[in-house]
Amino acid sequence: MKLSARNMLKGTVVDVVKGATTAHVRLDIGGATITASITNEAVDELGLKAGQKAAAVIKSSDVIIAVD
Amino acid sequence: MKLSARNMLKGTVVDVVKGATTAHVRLDIGGATITASITNEAVDELGLKAGQKAAAVIKSSDVIIAVD
Amino acid sequence: MKLSARNMLKGTVVDVVKGATTAHVRLDIGGATITASITNEAVDELGLKAGQKAAAVIKSSDVIIAVD
Amino acid sequence: MKLSARNMLKGTVVDVVKGATTAHVRLDIGGATITASITNEAVDELGLKAGQKAAAVIKSSDVIIAVD
Amino acid sequence: MKLSARNMLKGTVVDVVKGATTAHVRLDIGGATITASITNEAVDELGLKAGQKAAAVIKSSDVIIAVD
Amino acid sequence: MKLSARNMLKGTVVDVVKGATTAHVRLDIGGATITASITNEAVDELGLKAGQKAAAVIKSSDVIIAVD
Repeated sequence: MKLSARNMLKGTVVDVVKGATTAHVRLDIGGATITASITNEAVDELGLKAGQKAAAVIKSSDVIIAVD
Repeated sequence: MKLSARNMLKGTVVDVVKGATTAHVRLDIGGATITASITNEAVDELGLKAGQKAAAVIKSSDVIIAVD
Repeated sequence: MKLSARNMLKGTVVDVVKGATTAHVRLDIGGATITASITNEAVDELGLKAGQKAAAVIKSSDVIIAVD
Repeated sequence: MKLSARNMLKGTVVDVVKGATTAHVRLDIGGATITASITNEAVDELGLKAGQKAAAVIKSSDVIIAVD
Repeated sequence: MKLSARNMLKGTVVDVVKGATTAHVRLDIGGATITASITNEAVDELGLKAGQKAAAVIKSSDVIIAVD
Repeated sequence: MKLSARNMLKGTVVDVVKGATTAHVRLDIGGATITASITNEAVDELGLKAGQKAAAVIKSSDVIIAVD
């Protein structure tokens, strides 16, 4: 499967914290950590757990640029 | 200024392509490139150009997780 | 590849309109049409054209519910 | 009221699961199911419950295209 | 029509700038100006023009909080 | 720090409601209230509490226009 989303950052799952409906997944992408808010159902379906290889997919229209 | 957005990836602007209203900015974050779609006005106001230090700010609710 | 995004609507590309930097892709998902705004680069990389099978991927946090 | 959002998918609420602050609403749009993550307050204000007619509203900039 | 989106800011259209595919609409909400990036098709369909009453609809998951 | 996001609405925090993982923060921007869904971690890191000065940052691609 190929995606139109321009950004795919590969990494390793650091931890998964499930809430009542929403989970937070942190990904070590080498030099930085990415946090994703996803559904608990997605965590279960993808079997996400610490140590697993995964990627962060981000649409370019969701990226803000910041400068000092 | 501090932001609630969980993800701030620091890097260097690779290039800036302005369209009619929407610009694409690519950022080298070291090992990966991030593309952002922002307004031409933002490019002008921030004075974005190749070689400049900048960061990509991404809200965690905009991050999708992918696994093979 | 499996995605955390909860919504994947399969269909056929109706048309692709490229702008200066941003393209609009319409997808017939059977009974409804989905419009996506994506980068011209994504259109080229995926080789999107009318008649092609494709899917619309949408994160559940990007869905608003409306009632009459 | 008319909206600039290009995508409005009409359907019927399948179920509503409220969490601590965030609810998941599933909509049967005929041939596919859409999941929306919305606030508990929105669920209460709209009186969302299974069997109710509703629509999923999605901005085109939030749609990713996938191809095999 | 009622929406799950928590934020609806009423105002008056200041100006509409159409690009090749994407338009920028500015709304005076009284004390502040909101910029929206929407499709040219939406501008046409809603007949948006300066002086018109309109509202900005924003999902709460798309709002970032900033503090000094 | 300067941001590419076109919309920054200054106000005062009305209340903060933390859930299991996701918090809702309401901001009085003078004449209107903005609700933001952010992570509990962001609430803690920014020390958000009622009465505090804060701003809502919103990317223009996340704004929908509505007309009657």
